[in-house]
Amino acid sequence: MDLNCDMGESFGAYRIGADEKVLPYVTSANIACGFHAGDPAVMRRTVTAAVQHHVAIGAHPGLPDLPGFGRRAMQITPDEAYDMVVYQIGALQAVARAAGAALVHVKPHGALYNMAAADGDLAGAIADAVRRVDPQLVLVGLCGSPMLTAGERAGLRVAAEAFADRSYRADGSLTPRSEPNALIVDTAAAVEQVLDIVLRQRVRTIDGPDFPLRADTICLHGDGRHAAEFARAIRQRLDAEGIPVAALRP
Amino acid sequence: MDLNCDMGESFGAYRIGADEKVLPYVTSANIACGFHAGDPAVMRRTVTAAVQHHVAIGAHPGLPDLPGFGRRAMQITPDEAYDMVVYQIGALQAVARAAGAALVHVKPHGALYNMAAADGDLAGAIADAVRRVDPQLVLVGLCGSPMLTAGERAGLRVAAEAFADRSYRADGSLTPRSEPNALIVDTAAAVEQVLDIVLRQRVRTIDGPDFPLRADTICLHGDGRHAAEFARAIRQRLDAEGIPVAALRP
Amino acid sequence: MDLNCDMGESFGAYRIGADEKVLPYVTSANIACGFHAGDPAVMRRTVTAAVQHHVAIGAHPGLPDLPGFGRRAMQITPDEAYDMVVYQIGALQAVARAAGAALVHVKPHGALYNMAAADGDLAGAIADAVRRVDPQLVLVGLCGSPMLTAGERAGLRVAAEAFADRSYRADGSLTPRSEPNALIVDTAAAVEQVLDIVLRQRVRTIDGPDFPLRADTICLHGDGRHAAEFARAIRQRLDAEGIPVAALRP
Amino acid sequence: MDLNCDMGESFGAYRIGADEKVLPYVTSANIACGFHAGDPAVMRRTVTAAVQHHVAIGAHPGLPDLPGFGRRAMQITPDEAYDMVVYQIGALQAVARAAGAALVHVKPHGALYNMAAADGDLAGAIADAVRRVDPQLVLVGLCGSPMLTAGERAGLRVAAEAFADRSYRADGSLTPRSEPNALIVDTAAAVEQVLDIVLRQRVRTIDGPDFPLRADTICLHGDGRHAAEFARAIRQRLDAEGIPVAALRP
Repeated sequence: MDLNCDMGESFGAYRIGADEKVLPYVTSANIACGFHAGDPAVMRRTVTAAVQHHVAIGAHPGLPDLPGFGRRAMQITPDEAYDMVVYQIGALQAVARAAGAALVHVKPHGALYNMAAADGDLAGAIADAVRRVDPQLVLVGLCGSPMLTAGERAGLRVAAEAFADRSYRADGSLTPRSEPNALIVDTAAAVEQVLDIVLRQRVRTIDGPDFPLRADTICLHGDGRHAAEFARAIRQRLDAEGIPVAALRP
Repeated sequence: MDLNCDMGESFGAYRIGADEKVLPYVTSANIACGFHAGDPAVMRRTVTAAVQHHVAIGAHPGLPDLPGFGRRAMQITPDEAYDMVVYQIGALQAVARAAGAALVHVKPHGALYNMAAADGDLAGAIADAVRRVDPQLVLVGLCGSPMLTAGERAGLRVAAEAFADRSYRADGSLTPRSEPNALIVDTAAAVEQVLDIVLRQRVRTIDGPDFPLRADTICLHGDGRHAAEFARAIRQRLDAEGIPVAALRP
Repeated sequence: MDLNCDMGESFGAYRIGADEKVLPYVTSANIACGFHAGDPAVMRRTVTAAVQHHVAIGAHPGLPDLPGFGRRAMQITPDEAYDMVVYQIGALQAVARAAGAALVHVKPHGALYNMAAADGDLAGAIADAVRRVDPQLVLVGLCGSPMLTAGERAGLRVAAEAFADRSYRADGSLTPRSEPNALIVDTAAAVEQVLDIVLRQRVRTIDGPDFPLRADTICLHGDGRHAAEFARAIRQRLDAEGIPVAALRP
Repeated sequence: MDLNCDMGESFGAYRIGADEKVLPYVTSANIACGFHAGDPAVMRRTVTAAVQHHVAIGAHPGLPDLPGFGRRAMQITPDEAYDMVVYQIGALQAVARAAGAALVHVKPHGALYNMAAADGDLAGAIADAVRRVDPQLVLVGLCGSPMLTAGERAGLRVAAEAFADRSYRADGSLTPRSEPNALIVDTAAAVEQVLDIVLRQRVRTIDGPDFPLRADTICLHGDGRHAAEFARAIRQRLDAEGIPVAALRP
């Protein structure tokens, strides 16, 4: 099982996240690429920190919406999605290469992730972008979503993602952030959700029976107040259960 | 001799330049990378058009100043220059790779170009950025400027650039755009300046004797009103004079 | 009848529209405020030009999406709509005041206009923004849309808008720009549509019977290739028919 | 004596400053207007909070450089300075008016402030912008700088500003932020500097004798780690010394 966390979401004078505190516990870092968050200097520092912690790095492309942190759906065409994903992967690739590192995976951010989990055409465009930039990159998408199907169709390795700190609905979708119970803020509850996912291949839902899923990677959010605490607790529990934790393979 | 032209400077709904009309006459295209101009879709279309015309493509990174078209000097640190050049080269590399193409050169844009022509530390940071992203890239800089020295010190192939449509001052610098006679708007005068550069290794200046220079590449601007006419006239004259015109070698 | 046109949509080095050529024929200018288009200098020049032509000026606030020209729907909250409309009206008010002029109206742009024509909560937030900044401002919205109802509820004077150069659907909505026949590109057809609106209080639709409407103002687009020609032809025909053309009253 | 603090510098999901903790101790809030920091929602919340604390509000216009927090000098023309100041004042005026409040002062931010403290033409353009938007606004500038002269020439009320937490050089300029000792981080030292300014009309300098100055307002920075502690200590000491602390008068 891979543990991934969104990182590098600071911007200019602005700091978000506790990247340095989370890095010891995760195996993959999804690094913002300057559209919804992040900037060239933050990207460089984040790549360097991830490399130092032997954490695999991936691109976390988002919508061009810094004021909205990439969390507001936008009516973009598949071509627009393709172009913005190609651009953002490339920018991070160069930052990584300049630091002697290489990308392992790509995971769309926020609204782009959610839109691609519900729209096969967008998902196809994103998968195509990844494949054309580097067919060795692993595409990360929501368990059971068109993103994974599109990735497989494009010949990519895909990784199914489940969330430690987001609640689920009966149809397997994430509770939208506009809902009050979208986020799991209790550490023990997050650890339990991870164990449900890893050991029992299912997740509780807020409005129905458990939803079955098979995940290759589990996401922790790095901008929550308890990100570091969550990360440590989850990693310790997985280690205690004897569950191997390792990055995705390129 | 290489003929290069800045291209891909449109943005969203906005059109600048006559790229399609200039492409038949030049051998290298410097493509804006989204900071001072250009966007991911414009970059893709420009790369595609350049490839179709067998024109070599290069990155044209600029300052993060879309309202000022990258032409306003900004007090940035060498680290900031390094980061923004790495990022922009990478973005265009991915766009090129997705289109089955590869970059040949890098040429900073506007104020970044001028700042690097006057500041060895900035020039060094830019050269370092190019080298770390891809040491095969050719670095284009103003004839006789620290940009070229920095590039050579970094172990890069460099190309000395002279301008067809900008006037020169006695010290070999370009007349700033804020001056009334900065731009050469007469086609015949531009052709003469190119011949002076190519055949006589010197250029007239507005305030002194001719300035001697050796250029590997000559720049035409693509956003001038007469860009296409200039390009055709210059290319035809060079062909008529039997001067070989070819892209830089990576 | 008022004739309005979107203006001031240039940005930095980028030019869009034929404002100077359209101004002689219209009575109201909707001036972009820097979010989807326009910048502080363009706003100043546009206000000055409108004043010189005795054309009433209004704010044309849009979504914060310069790359998409404000034409991509975004999932914003009513509070976000309120804030961005307040901000943009204020920016243009100051530009106008500095030029000795004052705003007469507010008309949302592009996707914000369309979203407010379909969502009463958004429309209410926009009307509230206008009222709180200046209750004398006239709010312009699509004929028959919630935007007008919201404006009236807020105690504002409202103006119902119809379009000279956009085609209509049977339900009175505009054909989306993603459809091939969204734009009317034939001058005679645009003039006929205006006469239908003004003299017969109805408009033809692409997929059904005529749609009845009562308009206070007719919109011409300023970024179309034929904007100036349309404007002249429509104005001349209205004058020839003896129909008074005058700006909205604050 | 007025105590002012830069506020409203958060942006989107990003938080900077401790506005709520500083507001009880200051008398004027300089509110960012969206160019170097701040956004329409942050502006609204900051205005509301300032009003609740009976703190006077003013515009804090900056350079269009969000990644650099408006602290990187840019080579702008006086016309560009004029336009960006008009725009930003207007945006905040509307936010204030919508909240039932009004602006009292204008203080340029960061590099724009420093540039105007050294360049009479820029200072004149900024003073002109303020005057044309509202001649009742008080213009705040560095003690002894061309900004104040320009303001007086424009017929504005001006307020001379000194700094509690920035060190001075022998010529009365602020030590640039690129220097290690630019910021005063010790609370007692900041309090002493304020007392020197208020009681002895002079300030210590890092490289020479004391510099004499007469200040109408003292600036605390809101983005420092100790902003709230500084503010409380300074206000308590001024109160203890019996020095009246009150906002500038419009």
